Amino acid sequence: MSREELKKKAPWFMTRLRVRYQETDQMAVVYHANYLTWFEMGRTNMIRELGFSYFEMEEQGVMLPVIDANLSFRQPAHYDDEIVVYTRMTAFSKLRIEYEYEVRRFSGSLPEGPLVLGQDGDQELLGELLVIGSTKHVWVGKNDWRPVRLDKTVPKLYNALEGKLRTWN
Amino acid sequence: MSREELKKKAPWFMTRLRVRYQETDQMAVVYHANYLTWFEMGRTNMIRELGFSYFEMEEQGVMLPVIDANLSFRQPAHYDDEIVVYTRMTAFSKLRIEYEYEVRRFSGSLPEGPLVLGQDGDQELLGELLVIGSTKHVWVGKNDWRPVRLDKTVPKLYNALEGKLRTWN
Amino acid sequence: MSREELKKKAPWFMTRLRVRYQETDQMAVVYHANYLTWFEMGRTNMIRELGFSYFEMEEQGVMLPVIDANLSFRQPAHYDDEIVVYTRMTAFSKLRIEYEYEVRRFSGSLPEGPLVLGQDGDQELLGELLVIGSTKHVWVGKNDWRPVRLDKTVPKLYNALEGKLRTWN
Amino acid sequence: MSREELKKKAPWFMTRLRVRYQETDQMAVVYHANYLTWFEMGRTNMIRELGFSYFEMEEQGVMLPVIDANLSFRQPAHYDDEIVVYTRMTAFSKLRIEYEYEVRRFSGSLPEGPLVLGQDGDQELLGELLVIGSTKHVWVGKNDWRPVRLDKTVPKLYNALEGKLRTWN
Repeated sequence: MSREELKKKAPWFMTRLRVRYQETDQMAVVYHANYLTWFEMGRTNMIRELGFSYFEMEEQGVMLPVIDANLSFRQPAHYDDEIVVYTRMTAFSKLRIEYEYEVRRFSGSLPEGPLVLGQDGDQELLGELLVIGSTKHVWVGKNDWRPVRLDKTVPKLYNALEGKLRTWN
Repeated sequence: MSREELKKKAPWFMTRLRVRYQETDQMAVVYHANYLTWFEMGRTNMIRELGFSYFEMEEQGVMLPVIDANLSFRQPAHYDDEIVVYTRMTAFSKLRIEYEYEVRRFSGSLPEGPLVLGQDGDQELLGELLVIGSTKHVWVGKNDWRPVRLDKTVPKLYNALEGKLRTWN
Repeated sequence: MSREELKKKAPWFMTRLRVRYQETDQMAVVYHANYLTWFEMGRTNMIRELGFSYFEMEEQGVMLPVIDANLSFRQPAHYDDEIVVYTRMTAFSKLRIEYEYEVRRFSGSLPEGPLVLGQDGDQELLGELLVIGSTKHVWVGKNDWRPVRLDKTVPKLYNALEGKLRTWN
Repeated sequence: MSREELKKKAPWFMTRLRVRYQETDQMAVVYHANYLTWFEMGRTNMIRELGFSYFEMEEQGVMLPVIDANLSFRQPAHYDDEIVVYTRMTAFSKLRIEYEYEVRRFSGSLPEGPLVLGQDGDQELLGELLVIGSTKHVWVGKNDWRPVRLDKTVPKLYNALEGKLRTWN
């Protein structure tokens, strides 16, 4: 699936959290580095909802470190805010994964399960937009941190993930 | 000064730190969000070495939140590594500031004071390159978080910073 | 209410969380300082469930900083573990509040609402015990950080909290 | 060496740091959990100055997790403060290590090397006292996290540490 196709079809997965006091700084807003942690929670949760776990990946000898991250800060989050981290996969291959994120403030109830937008032309993500971001990751071997081809190293995982993604068509 | 001019002339300021155990994660490397904290240490320290302080800025009613951040991860840092955060200003105006960063592993001794590279064609930043990044910031009022023109809100600070930058010519 | 009475009658409030990758360290367990953050989540959540909010307290000019903390680490928590933070109030006066905490690993379903143990002799907190702790707090003025008597500074809050506690009798 | 003897003779080791913006919270003071991280920097640095490293310990198959921590908060630290973490060992055996800490605000110059107080009756630790604390640690095996006797598991390390401590007599 090309990046453009994936972007159109990949569903948004939702992770909820409440801002911790520890996450604020003396500007009385969430310290900006925490959004990278929230992104991580978003993609971890998405992987879990797809039926996999980062933990098992590491047990099978592969890791998926971040090689690139971009963040655009629109509005600050505050202590005790209810937050939704929207996460979707925008690229997937034997070598890498890319994700996109939207962090929004929202305290209402969310629709069940992952969300595909734009299909009927009028859906939008719920909540006030705070931060937009993206991350790129490569598969590396656990011991030497060298890039690996997932389809050769852990074919079962590669096929399973690939199969999941096909269902998004 | 244009962005291109500034980039050629702006000196690199250096901040040293040693990786804390708290900064590692279970991949036995520094958790990626910490680099944003290190960037902040780099620019804070640079501002201090220029004779100003973030603390005083806030007392004078302006803040400088991050509106954009980019990070490219080349090599992981490990526990107890000696790190140098190189920071320079790549844009400065009444409305905003931009910074560029290089995080390197280096335990030797560094040259004194800020560093202008490339002037004699052969200087390079010392240490093994780990992470490259940049951040953009806007001046906002402390109470309402709305953008302000620094030359009108705190003209003394604007003129002082502007004067410093001219000495880089 | 004396400390002993309160301890017998104060219900345990429950806060659930899942361990973040960011919270692990290179021993592949949760870095120990994070438990203090989890304690804070526990007491903040408890206050919210009682119908108050730390945020409003600060707006009314009082803060409740920690003056004392004790932690006893029994078993490490791991990445992705489902955690319950049990929190109860063990002392409350015009001048101070004390809390007690138990952090447990548990992924089943919990009983609804706060929990009073030992009343029928056989109830126990659910989950594998990881960390036990306690914190002490004093009421201070927001601006000068000097101790205040809550009944004089924000009598409405004092009376409301005091009234709640009486219902535990 | 008994605990009382050690306490009298063990020198204080000093670690300096400057408060990071990331370490503040919306009370505009250092978030309390960070002091545990600073304690860790203090004892890590002390071990390094004694000629050992936590990193090597872990390579030799032993780890030294915290099993108990106590903190007493006297005064808050603020952004950009210069901090000294004073650390000394108060117990050492085949099974465990205990440390004591004082965190002080101080920006002057410190005496060289570790510091033995009270020997001439009038020395005191320099700086304004912010936080007092202590931690207890046990030696555990890296793979199973079960307690080990250091003199049997890594006798070389045990003897070396033990020898160092004797020089404090």
